Amino acid sequence: MEAVVLEKKGLIRIRDIDIRENMGPDDVRIAVRAVGVCGSDVHYYTHGGVGPYVVREPMVLGHEASGIVLEVGKHVDTLRPGDPVCMEPGIPDMKSRAARLGLYNLDPSLTFWATPPIHGCLRESVVHPASFTYRLPPSVSLGEGALVEPFAVGLQAAKKAGITPGDTAVVTGAGTIGLMTCLAALGGGCSRIIISDRLQPKLDLAATLGPIVGVNIQKQDLKEIVAEYTDGWGADIVFEASGNGEAIQGTFDLLRPGGCVVLVGSPLEQVQLPIVTAQAKEARIETVFRYANVYDRALSLMESGAVNVKPFITKTYPFNRSVEASEYAAENHPETVKIQIIRE
Amino acid sequence: MEAVVLEKKGLIRIRDIDIRENMGPDDVRIAVRAVGVCGSDVHYYTHGGVGPYVVREPMVLGHEASGIVLEVGKHVDTLRPGDPVCMEPGIPDMKSRAARLGLYNLDPSLTFWATPPIHGCLRESVVHPASFTYRLPPSVSLGEGALVEPFAVGLQAAKKAGITPGDTAVVTGAGTIGLMTCLAALGGGCSRIIISDRLQPKLDLAATLGPIVGVNIQKQDLKEIVAEYTDGWGADIVFEASGNGEAIQGTFDLLRPGGCVVLVGSPLEQVQLPIVTAQAKEARIETVFRYANVYDRALSLMESGAVNVKPFITKTYPFNRSVEASEYAAENHPETVKIQIIRE
Amino acid sequence: MEAVVLEKKGLIRIRDIDIRENMGPDDVRIAVRAVGVCGSDVHYYTHGGVGPYVVREPMVLGHEASGIVLEVGKHVDTLRPGDPVCMEPGIPDMKSRAARLGLYNLDPSLTFWATPPIHGCLRESVVHPASFTYRLPPSVSLGEGALVEPFAVGLQAAKKAGITPGDTAVVTGAGTIGLMTCLAALGGGCSRIIISDRLQPKLDLAATLGPIVGVNIQKQDLKEIVAEYTDGWGADIVFEASGNGEAIQGTFDLLRPGGCVVLVGSPLEQVQLPIVTAQAKEARIETVFRYANVYDRALSLMESGAVNVKPFITKTYPFNRSVEASEYAAENHPETVKIQIIRE
Amino acid sequence: MEAVVLEKKGLIRIRDIDIRENMGPDDVRIAVRAVGVCGSDVHYYTHGGVGPYVVREPMVLGHEASGIVLEVGKHVDTLRPGDPVCMEPGIPDMKSRAARLGLYNLDPSLTFWATPPIHGCLRESVVHPASFTYRLPPSVSLGEGALVEPFAVGLQAAKKAGITPGDTAVVTGAGTIGLMTCLAALGGGCSRIIISDRLQPKLDLAATLGPIVGVNIQKQDLKEIVAEYTDGWGADIVFEASGNGEAIQGTFDLLRPGGCVVLVGSPLEQVQLPIVTAQAKEARIETVFRYANVYDRALSLMESGAVNVKPFITKTYPFNRSVEASEYAAENHPETVKIQIIRE
Repeated sequence: MEAVVLEKKGLIRIRDIDIRENMGPDDVRIAVRAVGVCGSDVHYYTHGGVGPYVVREPMVLGHEASGIVLEVGKHVDTLRPGDPVCMEPGIPDMKSRAARLGLYNLDPSLTFWATPPIHGCLRESVVHPASFTYRLPPSVSLGEGALVEPFAVGLQAAKKAGITPGDTAVVTGAGTIGLMTCLAALGGGCSRIIISDRLQPKLDLAATLGPIVGVNIQKQDLKEIVAEYTDGWGADIVFEASGNGEAIQGTFDLLRPGGCVVLVGSPLEQVQLPIVTAQAKEARIETVFRYANVYDRALSLMESGAVNVKPFITKTYPFNRSVEASEYAAENHPETVKIQIIRE
Repeated sequence: MEAVVLEKKGLIRIRDIDIRENMGPDDVRIAVRAVGVCGSDVHYYTHGGVGPYVVREPMVLGHEASGIVLEVGKHVDTLRPGDPVCMEPGIPDMKSRAARLGLYNLDPSLTFWATPPIHGCLRESVVHPASFTYRLPPSVSLGEGALVEPFAVGLQAAKKAGITPGDTAVVTGAGTIGLMTCLAALGGGCSRIIISDRLQPKLDLAATLGPIVGVNIQKQDLKEIVAEYTDGWGADIVFEASGNGEAIQGTFDLLRPGGCVVLVGSPLEQVQLPIVTAQAKEARIETVFRYANVYDRALSLMESGAVNVKPFITKTYPFNRSVEASEYAAENHPETVKIQIIRE
Repeated sequence: MEAVVLEKKGLIRIRDIDIRENMGPDDVRIAVRAVGVCGSDVHYYTHGGVGPYVVREPMVLGHEASGIVLEVGKHVDTLRPGDPVCMEPGIPDMKSRAARLGLYNLDPSLTFWATPPIHGCLRESVVHPASFTYRLPPSVSLGEGALVEPFAVGLQAAKKAGITPGDTAVVTGAGTIGLMTCLAALGGGCSRIIISDRLQPKLDLAATLGPIVGVNIQKQDLKEIVAEYTDGWGADIVFEASGNGEAIQGTFDLLRPGGCVVLVGSPLEQVQLPIVTAQAKEARIETVFRYANVYDRALSLMESGAVNVKPFITKTYPFNRSVEASEYAAENHPETVKIQIIRE
Repeated sequence: MEAVVLEKKGLIRIRDIDIRENMGPDDVRIAVRAVGVCGSDVHYYTHGGVGPYVVREPMVLGHEASGIVLEVGKHVDTLRPGDPVCMEPGIPDMKSRAARLGLYNLDPSLTFWATPPIHGCLRESVVHPASFTYRLPPSVSLGEGALVEPFAVGLQAAKKAGITPGDTAVVTGAGTIGLMTCLAALGGGCSRIIISDRLQPKLDLAATLGPIVGVNIQKQDLKEIVAEYTDGWGADIVFEASGNGEAIQGTFDLLRPGGCVVLVGSPLEQVQLPIVTAQAKEARIETVFRYANVYDRALSLMESGAVNVKPFITKTYPFNRSVEASEYAAENHPETVKIQIIRE
């Protein structure tokens, strides 16, 4: 079938690839329709790897996907051919110890689309377990369906924060994940977000999305602004979405006594943490690794209108211009949130 | 000072009453401006008591209040004369065992406005602890400030539910507390509410407030509708806000495995519960007694626009027509949510 | 193979039965060695059913089991032939929505040994998923291994209570589940248990197991004794293990403000609950349905010596006297906790 | 009154000091009987300060105390003269925002014995709020009563861990706090502890206290031993009680997916944390600052026998040899856990 293949670092081609997928009784076959270009796709393209994951063989890219069901396995009664769906890109072993605990995202044997050596979904069709395939409600488009994946990361962060209704949150970093976390935190019960970044276009976009205050840390003092908005008490939650060492270090200064820091962004290196500062506030620190059990929730929030991710689709490309889309994404335009590739 | 006094069952008068309040160093004196008429005020009026609380002496009514700070004690640095505020009507002993645990609402020695023999706040001014007096943000009016109290009950329910972002909730009963719980649940992270009642005007109002589906149980089957909206899985949370025995019994049929029932409404009598049904779903049941630590959160949600309680102010009366207001409230008009008494 | 078969209500026979079990790659085959006689086994025997579960075909009894691994499937690397093990008797569909959430015990499609029409394990051997088969530590005997199942119910109750270290708990009912809950609560962080029953021999046994105070409700006032032991504050947790309507009704009187009632016992009928009493304490009520993710914890507690279930094995019978064992169990001797059937 | 006064860095004297304490209606006056020498007392003595707290005026030392009630304020009905008691050394403002939330230990205005400029309790008597004074049960001695304070730190750690019954925990560091955390974790529901240190005498002591495995990191590989005891899964909880940078960094390698690290020890400097390693396990990190709401629980655990702190009283000195006691404590003998000063 036709696919977008990362042949090696720096070389993406659209070509035929031979992928044989057995269709089990609990699987569905899906025609892929919309696929978002993720930072990790770009990183594999520009660097040939992400941390311990190195591209050694040609690999199909893409893991943020929606599509139309083509065929269902004989045990599947929750989906039908023609259903618009989105798919969780990670497939765990449900018999594993982690999965039995409800932590299937932490199963070490989990495979994940477009993480070497597993092929991604930028191709004609995929076979996928029905239990990780979610029907889109009528009001959610295929483009929005392909945004469920990055939104799910923000939602996992919001879930782990254990938001108490009316919490004030800070989000450090207004990249895709920071913005998604903003929406998830507001949809998940926060009353107000203060978001920080160095890029003004991202902050300007954020300010249009709800009760969100943008702080440009090139000109403004985040700590002072948080103190001002919280009468000196501090934020209930700080979502760290930049992965930046300095930002991570500073989170505890923004926090109220008994507050929670959620580490969503992944720093490239070890980070110096002021543990005594954290202890003086008895801070709780949560960490996020992808997501589990949030796709259905993401779709409910989109369907009800509580969360609107449509402003994040900055630009779409047809499948046959996937290489161009990847190159554009690699250029890191400050006003760009998400590039999607559409296959009709 | 002038006050609205319940002389005895069935007799309310506006008259002078001699209330001497010592102003301590941690107190503030507040000119009362808006007071909502609560079902309990009406019940004291029509029945002379609520459960174990019986009116034996003339008592000033009213506990849902906002006002303007007149004077502050010498240790108070969080409020200033002229500040618009709302007040928590319960005053606990902060040295009590319950208060040390953060459960100050459960302190048995707590006194509460307009709960015999404690006078309420339908009078010229009150002296109140600064720590239970909350400054209104600029965008929150005095009328909304007086709605914080009933909204706080809904917010306490939402807090105790432990909402996971995107939860689907059912609210049984669309009276004032049911409607407040709806808003609190949506503001607190639910994606969608199904609310049930027998009175169509309440359901019609609810439907204008957000992603809320009204179910008229005189014509429709609540269980079937919940099943339909949740693909047969059940609701994540059922907020029981009617206090009706049959409604309470039926909550577990609406629930998903592992879901939560929050008992907000108080039944007059013991209620038959199908415990085996609850167990088969490992239901968690939370109960609500007023509120603690939610006033600041209520104001944040109102200020940010996440929650809008203005549609609940059905009618206002000037202070000198308080008797008329109470009588109107006692008539239980189906299209009425909240009557407020305003003192200029 | 030879099995203990409930032919119909009132008739148990040891006879050959034809059970063909496919051994899958993730399964193990186990020679059954010890099986406890559960109240449900007895109830099927004496009444022909338990609630909605009616015995319509001959059914092998038994679900509290340990044994020795005979053979392992080709994907199994956690167990080896010769390993002593115990088995969770319920097999869920791990692809189900409940299982993905970590609530596999609540999967409606779960099958459970000796619950019609599923055969139990009082037979020569069983084939079972390796992921629900647990190796016994060297210090845990096969007899104790067969007690993991009833202990798991108590442990599930202790887990759901969310014990804070040092909690004082009440256990109402000193039957097998009440006693197991006692041990689980102490092993799980309670400092002290007050246990109530009408049968003095059960209370006498309980008193030998740790810091446990027995209250004979035929002679003593449970509420008074709880008040005395807690300086009038109430118990942090009440585990209701009797299923008795009156006991369930009384739980809230024993509780501290903000405490938790865990409903472990299952009443035969609906129970009148004093909801206002529960609300005045903002009681949390948890319910228990079997268990999930506790077998490994049960074995850790037994291995470390924190929990000792050996005193609960009142009497053992060889396999060929299984009918006699069942009859003895049906007699409900007050000094009996658990009867086990041993197959050498 | 006579007191043990740190005149300045390096100089402790027993002398008369003029401390005037007003006895309020909610206070009690207590004759001090036993006081433990804490690492912070020693640090003030040897360094003249701890972090931001610098000794600028003569200060009475001591904050781990028990005593006998001499006199009670007129509102006090929970204590009587002659009662043996222990005292929480921190006094919060119960009207503060933190205190209203139940987080009174995090109130920035809290005063704490022997933290400059507040005098400690190594003196004849103290006046203290009754609500932070706890009567010792008959089976708890005054010496044990004075150990409640350091045990409370371990108990706060155990509480914040949210132990699930049967958890396996690692404690890194076998100093006083590490040992106290061991006992609290076992008493709080852990089935087994693996404790690490460089000092063999501490490990040898630990091994006598329960199901505790000592690991001497000078000779053994902690990670390997944890893997072995947990079948490669990792510990459910790691209590970091050393404050050592390397130990803190290594905690995530010891943890199971979804596990919890509790940072009890305070490092002198910022610590490099491998955040990606923490994220890959979705580790939760809790931090501890003293304690709140655990003194009563500590006493319950001691009274029931679940926790025995007596082995930690290594040596006692009479009050008139307090200087000697401080000098001995400053020598850091590896076999010493706690030195106590006794005033008859």
